[in-house]
Amino acid sequence: MKTRITELFGIEYPIIAGGMVWCSGWKLASAVSNAGGLGLIGAGSMTAEVLQEHIVQCKEATRGLPFGVNVPLMKPNSAELMEVIAQEKVPVVFTSAGSPKKWTSWLHERGIKVAHVVASSTFARKCEETGVDAVVAEGFEAGGHNGKEETTTMCLIPAARKATSLPLIAAGGIASGEAMLAVRALGAEGVQIGTLFALTQESGAHEAFKRRCLDLNEGDTKLLLRKLSPTRLVKGGFYNAIEEAENRGASPEELLDIIGIGKTKVGIFDGDIENGELEIGQVASLLKGNDIEPVATVMQRLVLEYEQALASLQ
Amino acid sequence: MKTRITELFGIEYPIIAGGMVWCSGWKLASAVSNAGGLGLIGAGSMTAEVLQEHIVQCKEATRGLPFGVNVPLMKPNSAELMEVIAQEKVPVVFTSAGSPKKWTSWLHERGIKVAHVVASSTFARKCEETGVDAVVAEGFEAGGHNGKEETTTMCLIPAARKATSLPLIAAGGIASGEAMLAVRALGAEGVQIGTLFALTQESGAHEAFKRRCLDLNEGDTKLLLRKLSPTRLVKGGFYNAIEEAENRGASPEELLDIIGIGKTKVGIFDGDIENGELEIGQVASLLKGNDIEPVATVMQRLVLEYEQALASLQ
Repeated sequence: MKTRITELFGIEYPIIAGGMVWCSGWKLASAVSNAGGLGLIGAGSMTAEVLQEHIVQCKEATRGLPFGVNVPLMKPNSAELMEVIAQEKVPVVFTSAGSPKKWTSWLHERGIKVAHVVASSTFARKCEETGVDAVVAEGFEAGGHNGKEETTTMCLIPAARKATSLPLIAAGGIASGEAMLAVRALGAEGVQIGTLFALTQESGAHEAFKRRCLDLNEGDTKLLLRKLSPTRLVKGGFYNAIEEAENRGASPEELLDIIGIGKTKVGIFDGDIENGELEIGQVASLLKGNDIEPVATVMQRLVLEYEQALASLQ
Repeated sequence: MKTRITELFGIEYPIIAGGMVWCSGWKLASAVSNAGGLGLIGAGSMTAEVLQEHIVQCKEATRGLPFGVNVPLMKPNSAELMEVIAQEKVPVVFTSAGSPKKWTSWLHERGIKVAHVVASSTFARKCEETGVDAVVAEGFEAGGHNGKEETTTMCLIPAARKATSLPLIAAGGIASGEAMLAVRALGAEGVQIGTLFALTQESGAHEAFKRRCLDLNEGDTKLLLRKLSPTRLVKGGFYNAIEEAENRGASPEELLDIIGIGKTKVGIFDGDIENGELEIGQVASLLKGNDIEPVATVMQRLVLEYEQALASLQ
């Protein structure tokens, strides 16, 4: 399982845990790094002070192993977050939701490796121009915010592979070693996994959220909010209100009103699965009935499944 | 490349050409069968008389090699189509868009093998109960009519694999040997390919349709018509009219009015790419800039890519 991704980040397995709001604190990030992957702290829901705390704890828990921080660039406090990251000498940053142009050289000057998340081959190509070290191509299956093109992982990875010669990480719909092997066949050299890690013991999400997500059927997550920013949501009260409004042709303004503020915290962190905004990947339905497991168990299974799937092809 | 699918149908490669309206006449079906795959005649746009003609020509062109017919079961003339199929002793039928319960034993009694197309693991399980010989699981990426769950190939194939022990064929987003290998890693034993074959020389589609589909960017096909029957369409005048209506909350009745009758013929067969209904898979954007090639070239490339991708994993 040695690829340019394991080499770039100095990790054992080319498995990255996506930085997810309310899920990816220091506990999840350090558990993944300690199990041989690359854990990311998700700064999307954090102030600079909170992020600093998580970084300090993560360093203590990982004792020199690499970890990273995900920074959604459209966040108003992204500059403050970057300052904390540089000050704390975090080795890796994953940027998303914005252009990596502004920050890549700034991070490189500080010795920090940069990967950027895209949902199209056009942006994969642009990434290469800005000098990032790796590209994450995330398909339509992924939870939360998503690309306007709705390109699935099966179609996106070969397109991104054609568009860039950079080390390529696949995301969206990957929750097993078999899926890791599948995206490797499509040209990826590593995977970013969200859903599977969001539902582990070390994830910061509320247990009610985890249990709801481990009980989903096919079709229980859908991409909505195409008039604002396409987002994959779990069915429930919040979802129903948006779907009903969209079906009657609601304007972007009306939709913003329904969404309100802070609803991902209500759903994912506080565990109000009826009124909160629940974001998870489509692949959750493949995990139906699973326990809420520790990260170490999940990582061992991924590696074993991958090796077995590879052997069965040979 | 020997699997239960090659064995079941008596073919060299586990590659099936989907039976597509206006594309899959005897020329395309026989070319795929003659190249070692299984060609299907798409009866969805045919009367019983027209289907009989195509079967007779296909038999002549294939000289004893296996081929099949795809029958969408919601078609009002499906019983007549089945009679012709039985009379002409067609060896294989792929059923779709309906329950295979009614026809499976009828076809089996006449020595005809049956595969059924599904878009969810629930229906894959039901298939097994009706006694079909193989299941086709078709993901969200696929062109034309699609499942309500919007499950992508990456998530659907493992789910279908869990749900049934029957020989499993993957469809949706597959247009390369690398993608064939990817779905094999996910548990499929064969592939059904639509888009790639719809755009070959032997496809019955109009050249203007083929050229338009070989010039698409990511995001240029989308799933619309969720209020009626979800359908993946190519952007253009017909698409825009539907999208505009859906954005303002149009009712199913209004949408039916806009769709009208016979618009796939206008778009795909007559080649009016502005006013006609254009159906193609999301994977078309990966073929951008390709020539309109003969089937034999496409089949050789698929096999070569598959073997190279497998070797590179080893």
